[in-house]
Amino acid sequence: MNAPSSDLGEFDLIRRYFQQHEAQRDAIQLAQRGVVLGIGDDAAVLRLPRGTDLVAAVDTLVAGRHFPLATAARSVGYRALAVNLSDLAAMGATPAWATLALTMPTADARWLQEFSAGLFDIAQQHGVTLVGGDTTRGPLTVSVQILGSVPRGAALRRDGAKAGDLLAVSGTLGDSGAGLKFVSAAPSGGDRGDARAAAVDELIRRFDYPIPRVQMGLAARYIASAAMDISDGLAGDLPKLAAASGLHAHVDVDRLPLSPALRATVSEVQAREWALVAGDDYELLLAASRANYPKLEAAARQLNLTLTIIGELSSGSGVSWSADGVDYTPATSGFDHFG
Amino acid sequence: MNAPSSDLGEFDLIRRYFQQHEAQRDAIQLAQRGVVLGIGDDAAVLRLPRGTDLVAAVDTLVAGRHFPLATAARSVGYRALAVNLSDLAAMGATPAWATLALTMPTADARWLQEFSAGLFDIAQQHGVTLVGGDTTRGPLTVSVQILGSVPRGAALRRDGAKAGDLLAVSGTLGDSGAGLKFVSAAPSGGDRGDARAAAVDELIRRFDYPIPRVQMGLAARYIASAAMDISDGLAGDLPKLAAASGLHAHVDVDRLPLSPALRATVSEVQAREWALVAGDDYELLLAASRANYPKLEAAARQLNLTLTIIGELSSGSGVSWSADGVDYTPATSGFDHFG
Repeated sequence: MNAPSSDLGEFDLIRRYFQQHEAQRDAIQLAQRGVVLGIGDDAAVLRLPRGTDLVAAVDTLVAGRHFPLATAARSVGYRALAVNLSDLAAMGATPAWATLALTMPTADARWLQEFSAGLFDIAQQHGVTLVGGDTTRGPLTVSVQILGSVPRGAALRRDGAKAGDLLAVSGTLGDSGAGLKFVSAAPSGGDRGDARAAAVDELIRRFDYPIPRVQMGLAARYIASAAMDISDGLAGDLPKLAAASGLHAHVDVDRLPLSPALRATVSEVQAREWALVAGDDYELLLAASRANYPKLEAAARQLNLTLTIIGELSSGSGVSWSADGVDYTPATSGFDHFG
Repeated sequence: MNAPSSDLGEFDLIRRYFQQHEAQRDAIQLAQRGVVLGIGDDAAVLRLPRGTDLVAAVDTLVAGRHFPLATAARSVGYRALAVNLSDLAAMGATPAWATLALTMPTADARWLQEFSAGLFDIAQQHGVTLVGGDTTRGPLTVSVQILGSVPRGAALRRDGAKAGDLLAVSGTLGDSGAGLKFVSAAPSGGDRGDARAAAVDELIRRFDYPIPRVQMGLAARYIASAAMDISDGLAGDLPKLAAASGLHAHVDVDRLPLSPALRATVSEVQAREWALVAGDDYELLLAASRANYPKLEAAARQLNLTLTIIGELSSGSGVSWSADGVDYTPATSGFDHFG
């Protein structure tokens, strides 16, 4: 169903934010980025580097489900691309292009300005060019498809792990999920005393502006045996990697990397639980042989990124957990974005 | 924001529809289709044919805006891919892969069954493999990204037309827009007398199941000088092609191809207006030199597709229309999907 032409002004408004930014690039810049034909035709024409395969992923953020309705527009734009970059990171792929399907209730100029600032901020950090988009009126939904490339045969898959491999995670777990819980409870930590308030603000920032581990994914190529990103919580995601590789995974919950900010705000037992099931971490879960692990660790060190061994893989199936030396069962078996 | 694990059942339900279908293909079939790694990892890994560029487009359908809320699920699934295929057709590209971002209010098994039947029906017709997806709960929104390939330098662009080129359209215009108007007025034409009822049903079918002109787009490579698909109505879309090519376009409204079904249901003047502005046609608008036009016509004939010269391009800018030998101004300057 179409709308009368009186709405053309609104449409133009949207287009201005997303096309002008990219149109500023000159032809040489676009060619360097593999963009043969960008925004403005029926489709984009893109050139992959020689000897590479295309890597494609899509992730959708729905207002009120994947972020609180009151979330800053800048965070929404940033996160929409960040969660997709995290998928490419988990493949060891180099991000290149993105398309945006934006559904929004009204063409709010200030909201759009902030949204696009967040989106283009992280796009620029990772050399991503927006090559297409579609804007429709409706309840706020942001769907981004990310496109990138990987040398043929080099993609990090979930099914490549071997018995005896070590399991490691990047960064710290549970922060983002904790941030979401705090932001849902109160918009700012400002009234909670200085140290705790600063910690809460940091956790909220982790939710609003997750850092996709793209460089770590690239560094893990030819070293890690398997990888995936942790978006639904380790307890929800690890079983997928174990199943894809046909192995049993064991995790020592005492080893889970917890940030000072998380430890400063909640009890140890709560922090552990959130690290397992709260989700929205966008850290990498990596498997590597004991022989290769030092190389992985060296790569992480060069990126100033913490890498923590949390367990190992063995023949069998399923996932087992231990804490304080005895069996442990996470509070839930995992979270699910459809619910 | 995640949902508790009690919803895992629903998520699995969705996944079943979209993954099992593709999982049935064997590894050889997938490799033939360029799928190195399909659904089930963080991202898909895809291999383009040698010497080609990637072509990518995205289109979103929002319930109540792009189709009536009562539209059959099969039509929603079919249309979501069809409108994207139409974008690739307009580039002269060969469709290969698609990703789906589906947002739906509840996991309704029967609706999903029908939706996926419609989606996979047209996917199969055009050799498209679904390589990724994301399902979220929210108001019904279907966003499809289509990926395909085109030999380097062969893409049909909007900016390639030359002064003196003829303008032509495939098929007939206005049918789909008329169908939408009828379906919005009454769900079926069954109570309107036999001949007119059959015509109305045909128009509604044109809206529910538009035929993307993929084969015609492929045939037009190296022959047409410019192309685009007509999705917002000729009066809305032609100015974009004229502007991209830096030319003036003139159309003789008397020449617009109108179907017998449209003529059987509304007056000539109404039929013309809908052909210009009602939208949702998904026919191709093509420009070709007078020397090349016969080749384009021969290609269309081989595809059993009507191709009609509607006007021509000349130096200058803007679009002019004539009807019955005198100047004509379309009822509106075009429709807009955001509104």
